[in-house]
Amino acid sequence: MSLKPLYDRILVEPIEQEEKTQGGIFIPDTAKEKPMEGKVLAIGEGYRLENGQISPLKIQIGDTVVYGKWAGTEIKSNGKTLSIMKESDVLAIKSNN
Amino acid sequence: MSLKPLYDRILVEPIEQEEKTQGGIFIPDTAKEKPMEGKVLAIGEGYRLENGQISPLKIQIGDTVVYGKWAGTEIKSNGKTLSIMKESDVLAIKSNN
Amino acid sequence: MSLKPLYDRILVEPIEQEEKTQGGIFIPDTAKEKPMEGKVLAIGEGYRLENGQISPLKIQIGDTVVYGKWAGTEIKSNGKTLSIMKESDVLAIKSNN
Amino acid sequence: MSLKPLYDRILVEPIEQEEKTQGGIFIPDTAKEKPMEGKVLAIGEGYRLENGQISPLKIQIGDTVVYGKWAGTEIKSNGKTLSIMKESDVLAIKSNN
Amino acid sequence: MSLKPLYDRILVEPIEQEEKTQGGIFIPDTAKEKPMEGKVLAIGEGYRLENGQISPLKIQIGDTVVYGKWAGTEIKSNGKTLSIMKESDVLAIKSNN
Amino acid sequence: MSLKPLYDRILVEPIEQEEKTQGGIFIPDTAKEKPMEGKVLAIGEGYRLENGQISPLKIQIGDTVVYGKWAGTEIKSNGKTLSIMKESDVLAIKSNN
Amino acid sequence: MSLKPLYDRILVEPIEQEEKTQGGIFIPDTAKEKPMEGKVLAIGEGYRLENGQISPLKIQIGDTVVYGKWAGTEIKSNGKTLSIMKESDVLAIKSNN
Repeated sequence: MSLKPLYDRILVEPIEQEEKTQGGIFIPDTAKEKPMEGKVLAIGEGYRLENGQISPLKIQIGDTVVYGKWAGTEIKSNGKTLSIMKESDVLAIKSNN
Repeated sequence: MSLKPLYDRILVEPIEQEEKTQGGIFIPDTAKEKPMEGKVLAIGEGYRLENGQISPLKIQIGDTVVYGKWAGTEIKSNGKTLSIMKESDVLAIKSNN
Repeated sequence: MSLKPLYDRILVEPIEQEEKTQGGIFIPDTAKEKPMEGKVLAIGEGYRLENGQISPLKIQIGDTVVYGKWAGTEIKSNGKTLSIMKESDVLAIKSNN
Repeated sequence: MSLKPLYDRILVEPIEQEEKTQGGIFIPDTAKEKPMEGKVLAIGEGYRLENGQISPLKIQIGDTVVYGKWAGTEIKSNGKTLSIMKESDVLAIKSNN
Repeated sequence: MSLKPLYDRILVEPIEQEEKTQGGIFIPDTAKEKPMEGKVLAIGEGYRLENGQISPLKIQIGDTVVYGKWAGTEIKSNGKTLSIMKESDVLAIKSNN
Repeated sequence: MSLKPLYDRILVEPIEQEEKTQGGIFIPDTAKEKPMEGKVLAIGEGYRLENGQISPLKIQIGDTVVYGKWAGTEIKSNGKTLSIMKESDVLAIKSNN
Repeated sequence: MSLKPLYDRILVEPIEQEEKTQGGIFIPDTAKEKPMEGKVLAIGEGYRLENGQISPLKIQIGDTVVYGKWAGTEIKSNGKTLSIMKESDVLAIKSNN
């Protein structure tokens, strides 16, 4: 079963944040910064422009993205908790270069 | 009696969510995630653009769609509870590939 | 005396909902779903576009329409309680095919 | 002394509603449906479009219009209480055919 | 010292309303309808359109205008209390024909 | 060190208002009308239009401008308290002719 | 690991404000004006225009920018606290000429 996000939305699998601060203090779940990073599993066709045409997204499948804490809608799929959000919710793309 | 959604709206028959969590705990109706999935029974002509022309929807009859909990307006038709929503309320299309 | 709705508005005569639930329970007026269906008695010329031109409505006189509970403005005409609403308040057109 | 409404506004002289309900009950002023009908005394040049041009109104001097209770701004002129509103506040034009 | 309103703004000298009602009752300052009429002392170049061009105002210096009670910003100039408002705050132009 | 306002913003040095009313009453700081006049020290390139082009501002360096009390953001520069605001916050340009 | 801001966003490393006022009074952290200056570490491709094209930013990597206190989203990267904001959050560019 797969999910195809609609138009300018993307499907993201959140990456759990480090459990402890650098000082070793364990952060309880509530205070733990909700995962703000995630791997892009699927993307929509693109933005629906005012004239009805479609303009492709910048973000690609496989990108690691950084997004606002309250962005997106949580969704359960094959036992995993994923998130569907708009491309405009993404702040930046993380790369290892 | 049939319902033809207007412009960029779609008619959806909600698919009831699994009654129990994987651990077997029965979820009372209130807490049960309101059905966020549904089968598309009918679609409108499309978006009415600023110049008055119509731009067809992406979603088709028969698609299974995932949508936000509070999306759409409940409507009773032939004894069934259906939902009319805008295409923009749909997060993703579910497929079995 | 007749009422000609302006631009993208329509004049609707609400159709009273069924008094009882299928189980025979009488629904008091307050709880009774305010009539969400109605017959279109008159329609405006159409949408006034940004360039000043008029783009005709999709809804026609005689259509039975389904609309949100709080849509439109109640108006008394020839002793009847009618409702004037925008075409965009209409969710769907009901037909008997 | 005359008032020339600006752009897409119109000047309306409200028509007092019937004092009694059909059942003969006298409606106190407060509950009396504030006059929602009125005669058009003057109209503006038209809508100022995004490109600066003017697009004429549909409503004409002499029309009887139906408008929302809270529409417009009350104004005193020659001892009369009139109302200045936007054409978009008008729900319908009343005619005797 | 003179004030040149910017773009689609106008500078207005409010005309004090009649102190008494026609029945001779003196209206205390608070209740006195704040002056809703005024003389236009200066006007801006015009509306700045989306493409950056300027589209001149309709209102001219010397016009007597009628405007909403809460429109504009009070400003002191040469000991007088004037008001700077947008042309869109003006309801109508008053003329003596 | 200099500040170059971005796009349609301007940098203004507020001009302190007269300390006393004409009747000689000293106005305490809180009640003192926050300076609503100021000298323009720097201006941005202009408005960024929808098509990405730049449309120059009307206000020039050296102008004395009148602006709403709550306009702009206070900023400290070389020990002075200045204000950065949008051109659209300016009500009028003051000149001595 | 590097962060590439999306579209019209920029990545800024805040520059800590002077700890003391000129009079030598130490400002406690809470009252300390949150850093409103920062160095630009990375910029997005540019604004996504309505027609889907990209219009480059004005701000460049290496610029020192001044921005509103509440602008942007804090983000941790390689142990540093950075901020991702939109170009439109930036008030001015600081230069040493």
